[in-house]
Amino acid sequence: MKQNIYDNETFYTLYDEMRNDDKKLSANDLIEIPTIRGMLPDLRGKRVLDLGCGYGDNCAYFAESGAKYVLGTDISEHMIGIAKSTHMNSNCKFQVLAMEDISSIPDKFDIVISSLAFHYVEDFDKLLKDIHKLLKENGLLIFSQEHPIGTGTILNDACNEEDCIDLGNKNYFLVSDYNVNGKRIVDWNNCKVVKYHRNFSCIINTLQRQNFKIEDILEPTPSDEVLAKKPRYKNQFDKPYFLFIKAKKL
Amino acid sequence: MKQNIYDNETFYTLYDEMRNDDKKLSANDLIEIPTIRGMLPDLRGKRVLDLGCGYGDNCAYFAESGAKYVLGTDISEHMIGIAKSTHMNSNCKFQVLAMEDISSIPDKFDIVISSLAFHYVEDFDKLLKDIHKLLKENGLLIFSQEHPIGTGTILNDACNEEDCIDLGNKNYFLVSDYNVNGKRIVDWNNCKVVKYHRNFSCIINTLQRQNFKIEDILEPTPSDEVLAKKPRYKNQFDKPYFLFIKAKKL
Repeated sequence: MKQNIYDNETFYTLYDEMRNDDKKLSANDLIEIPTIRGMLPDLRGKRVLDLGCGYGDNCAYFAESGAKYVLGTDISEHMIGIAKSTHMNSNCKFQVLAMEDISSIPDKFDIVISSLAFHYVEDFDKLLKDIHKLLKENGLLIFSQEHPIGTGTILNDACNEEDCIDLGNKNYFLVSDYNVNGKRIVDWNNCKVVKYHRNFSCIINTLQRQNFKIEDILEPTPSDEVLAKKPRYKNQFDKPYFLFIKAKKL
Repeated sequence: MKQNIYDNETFYTLYDEMRNDDKKLSANDLIEIPTIRGMLPDLRGKRVLDLGCGYGDNCAYFAESGAKYVLGTDISEHMIGIAKSTHMNSNCKFQVLAMEDISSIPDKFDIVISSLAFHYVEDFDKLLKDIHKLLKENGLLIFSQEHPIGTGTILNDACNEEDCIDLGNKNYFLVSDYNVNGKRIVDWNNCKVVKYHRNFSCIINTLQRQNFKIEDILEPTPSDEVLAKKPRYKNQFDKPYFLFIKAKKL
């Protein structure tokens, strides 16, 4: 099932508010964006596809970094509308398209990037197979997702909506159902959002099965600078928020 | 530092007792041994090295499965002594040797196997580099280790020595310090045992850096048969006990 939660007004009103915060203190701003951009190769002259591009900010960054062609796709008309109006002066192209339907894209790319979107897709094998076809020889796939130690856990009422607990003045994350891959329904921005949990072996074996060679995996910890801005992010030493993978098409 | 806890009498008295339990209901018997043996290729005519071979039972199994030469090494004289006397009629060779010193082995092997021993070794890069040299072209490394979601956590007094907690009749594992690689000192068999925690990205990037291609990763869940014998092992659906990796020398 294709989920289009980013076109749900209840959801996007709160999501836009969070992401547009001028202080730029979200985990996206402080951790995810700098990390995934730090994994990029030299983009000059390259053709780049951004799957689940959202507001298109990464696309604009790729174009500014010298990419000769950038296509951003997203299932959400709301997001693509903002991307087009915000980045109308860039040479990026934006298209409403679900990640389940990317095999319809006729172009080939040097790099496929996806930021925090793969965990919305149920069929990871098909997604990687489609990406493999869209990549040129030796092309790169670079993606981030919510960290699998976190995505598995199913909280109940006794957890009081908290995924961690304080014991003896030390933080512990609560982990359950890590080894049960599949659908999770989580409350986010007053909506029920569907995500798909995949444990590490599933992620890595699927990449291997679909003929990708892993080049780098990152589970970032916050820098001192980030901690000064947001001290509670020190809990990423206990469990990373995100997982980043760079893999080459074989 | 090379640790030789298996030659500590306090430790091995209790360890031997646990492993020699006739009921064969330990996690080694029910999960680890069947899983790692299930990852083996056809061993007929192959040369096999078992690092941290302990009692040598896997070595004897490799020989029975057709391996033409099997060398088992272990830092512990206690373990190698038992291996030699238990398997004196097999064609296996056993040698007291720390995993830090395997570069002294003059032979080459088709397969290097290690069961639940790598987490005792501090320098994973050096270990993999040494194994790479001991393998023939396209040789296989197959190893198990304690699962990294568990090896990071540092329990304090408030945890009452438990690595999980019951909330609303549901089991949750306590996870801390996953993203801080390095030494952990744990209480086991009335001893302080040193282990080294490595998160997933460290394990996978080190394999990649040392020119191994991952072929398969397993985080097993218990079968119905195992659960009938030991119902509490259902908590492996929450967090696997072990991680298994099969990788090919590039």
